Amino acid sequence: MNSDRLEAFSDGVFAVGITLLALGLAVARPGHGSLAYQLSGQWPSFAAYAVSFLTIGIIWVNHHTLFKNFARIDRPLLFLNLLLLFFVVSIPFATSTLAAYLKTGGFDASVAAAIYQGVFEGMSLSFGILFWWSIRHEHLKIALTPAAARSAMIRFGIGNVAYIAAIGVAFLSARASLAISALVAVYYIFEQTPARGPAPAVHGEPGNPRSPGEES
Amino acid sequence: MNSDRLEAFSDGVFAVGITLLALGLAVARPGHGSLAYQLSGQWPSFAAYAVSFLTIGIIWVNHHTLFKNFARIDRPLLFLNLLLLFFVVSIPFATSTLAAYLKTGGFDASVAAAIYQGVFEGMSLSFGILFWWSIRHEHLKIALTPAAARSAMIRFGIGNVAYIAAIGVAFLSARASLAISALVAVYYIFEQTPARGPAPAVHGEPGNPRSPGEES
Amino acid sequence: MNSDRLEAFSDGVFAVGITLLALGLAVARPGHGSLAYQLSGQWPSFAAYAVSFLTIGIIWVNHHTLFKNFARIDRPLLFLNLLLLFFVVSIPFATSTLAAYLKTGGFDASVAAAIYQGVFEGMSLSFGILFWWSIRHEHLKIALTPAAARSAMIRFGIGNVAYIAAIGVAFLSARASLAISALVAVYYIFEQTPARGPAPAVHGEPGNPRSPGEES
Amino acid sequence: MNSDRLEAFSDGVFAVGITLLALGLAVARPGHGSLAYQLSGQWPSFAAYAVSFLTIGIIWVNHHTLFKNFARIDRPLLFLNLLLLFFVVSIPFATSTLAAYLKTGGFDASVAAAIYQGVFEGMSLSFGILFWWSIRHEHLKIALTPAAARSAMIRFGIGNVAYIAAIGVAFLSARASLAISALVAVYYIFEQTPARGPAPAVHGEPGNPRSPGEES
Repeated sequence: MNSDRLEAFSDGVFAVGITLLALGLAVARPGHGSLAYQLSGQWPSFAAYAVSFLTIGIIWVNHHTLFKNFARIDRPLLFLNLLLLFFVVSIPFATSTLAAYLKTGGFDASVAAAIYQGVFEGMSLSFGILFWWSIRHEHLKIALTPAAARSAMIRFGIGNVAYIAAIGVAFLSARASLAISALVAVYYIFEQTPARGPAPAVHGEPGNPRSPGEES
Repeated sequence: MNSDRLEAFSDGVFAVGITLLALGLAVARPGHGSLAYQLSGQWPSFAAYAVSFLTIGIIWVNHHTLFKNFARIDRPLLFLNLLLLFFVVSIPFATSTLAAYLKTGGFDASVAAAIYQGVFEGMSLSFGILFWWSIRHEHLKIALTPAAARSAMIRFGIGNVAYIAAIGVAFLSARASLAISALVAVYYIFEQTPARGPAPAVHGEPGNPRSPGEES
Repeated sequence: MNSDRLEAFSDGVFAVGITLLALGLAVARPGHGSLAYQLSGQWPSFAAYAVSFLTIGIIWVNHHTLFKNFARIDRPLLFLNLLLLFFVVSIPFATSTLAAYLKTGGFDASVAAAIYQGVFEGMSLSFGILFWWSIRHEHLKIALTPAAARSAMIRFGIGNVAYIAAIGVAFLSARASLAISALVAVYYIFEQTPARGPAPAVHGEPGNPRSPGEES
Repeated sequence: MNSDRLEAFSDGVFAVGITLLALGLAVARPGHGSLAYQLSGQWPSFAAYAVSFLTIGIIWVNHHTLFKNFARIDRPLLFLNLLLLFFVVSIPFATSTLAAYLKTGGFDASVAAAIYQGVFEGMSLSFGILFWWSIRHEHLKIALTPAAARSAMIRFGIGNVAYIAAIGVAFLSARASLAISALVAVYYIFEQTPARGPAPAVHGEPGNPRSPGEES
């Protein structure tokens, strides 16, 4: 299987998952208090929705940044990708659960936040394994230098450590835990996955040139 | 990342969003009055559904008209596109909220209509920023003449001003506000995005010829 | 816009629409009678689901048979296609409404069946207009002979007439009306859209050869 | 129709189907017992969700392994593929039904498990027919040796027999039945569809070379 088919299927899952997030945003029918009051009471839904949207958006961006450098897809990679998608597909459930329980506070809110961060951690971890497998088995069109690979693993590690910390923080404060995942999302907007960085200077593949101006 | 992958993912989001609109069209199970009576009472659902369907359809058409002229996609464009999709994905929620509250009248209907128009305004504004960024940073394959760019920004401006007006009108009459967004949709059926207009005469790229008869 | 992008977006809508059909198939939670009893009482859901699935499947097959012969897509075709998709997207709503009301019998069941057939008629009619526009404005890569075009319009006409008849029959018997649309679906399994028939013999495009064995 | 279009549409259906699975994972709003208690009571939902996710994932992998070797798609194959998708689309319904009734035990749980396995059997059977049709009508780019075809049919047969057994076992123990389909999924992770196996050595198509290292 070449990378195109895998990306097309993954794109479909990302697109459906990101759109289903918004299904959790329903307000009650008329007769349950004023709409403005209901909406202002639903701020956890909107906050969790925004963080989840951004997180799926970023993982999609990073997914393609990684896969466009894949020379071939073997069977283990297919199933590692399925593992990643498993967590992506679980995000709408985790998001609506957090949205429903964040305002209750107490232990329930903590459990909901821990599940939310756990799904993000699962997604982050499978992405890291996918990346690690790809460099270990030399599936990349443009190999990474050892230094680039190391710095990439560090960048992934930061996300992983942050999500694990957020699971712990969930039991102190569910809201602080949500804030951590928002910060992780903002961090990854500015930090790119490293599959495309310094390698061209090393191998300089003429068949797959990168103009110096290409940023993504 | 080239334009194809971004378009495929965006297409997925547009396709899911436009199809989820119809999920808001449910009638009650038997035993809640005659079906004909229920359906006639649901005209706000059908009106909001039709306007939202047409609006997403048009933004999809314009999205491709713009992106097929993109020479390359850098990271800021990826995130500007995600911002656009954020508003697209919010349309089913805004539509079902408006459908539920339009008939109640009063302040709730106005809030629902203002949210509906606000989501359209957000979508319209992010599309305008995307376009402005693309001409400012010379991402277009076929550059626009300054006159064409100016006229394009004016056309985008008309939509933006109309949606902002519709937010204000929502507090006078939610129905009049819905009518404005219906008119905006009809306007954009006939007005094309300008990314393809007069430029070929200026650059005349032989590798990317446009036959005079090509209309879209 | 070339045909590929339009087909990709339409494919997305068809795929989501056909999958959302199954969302109408929910049974009640435990405590509402035995599962076997519930399921046997839901036969209208399953019948309507099967007919709708087959109908969307066939219109998808015919959509591609038609569009692969399109030389170019102009703006009117884009909006005619959106009109077609509008009816496709409405099918899950029409299906779940019919499923809910078919067993009640009486006028409600007739209204539900008439809406169901009306959505199919709208889809069928927009497909016919799309086809008529394409031959009238010479958008086809391989032109149809006048005889082939005539026979094609007749074949489309049969579906249209059948759906209009089914709207009328709905007011006599909702079940008979559902049976008509099942028969139309079976008819179109065996009858192909004519955009590909006798034309090659007339034009014999060497750049786009069809081997005699190619059936679809 | 070439294989690409069919795969793109099928990919869309697989992607939507696999994502809709997670819609069945909703917990009740606050006020229905602690969240941790609710979630631990929902283990059948999570187990059924995981098995269904993996099963759709595997059938997607096998679908592409098969279709990338298809030289052409004729009309019967289109409809055999629609039959396969019909069962794929039914999986979220079967999964949420099993999740709802697994804990009730007794005959209802058995009926739910039998439906669940019946949908998997339908999917497995249509995939087998698709495969059998493709080798019988010589649609494959790289023909299978008779021995390879025989061994392939045996591998399909194992899945089919297991699902039929699971339907029977459902009436003894719904949980044991679910365990069987989990085992089938794990089996197919390691067993590949045979459309790609020993044939290259026989025909050795130079236009479609497979490097010895290509595993999928």
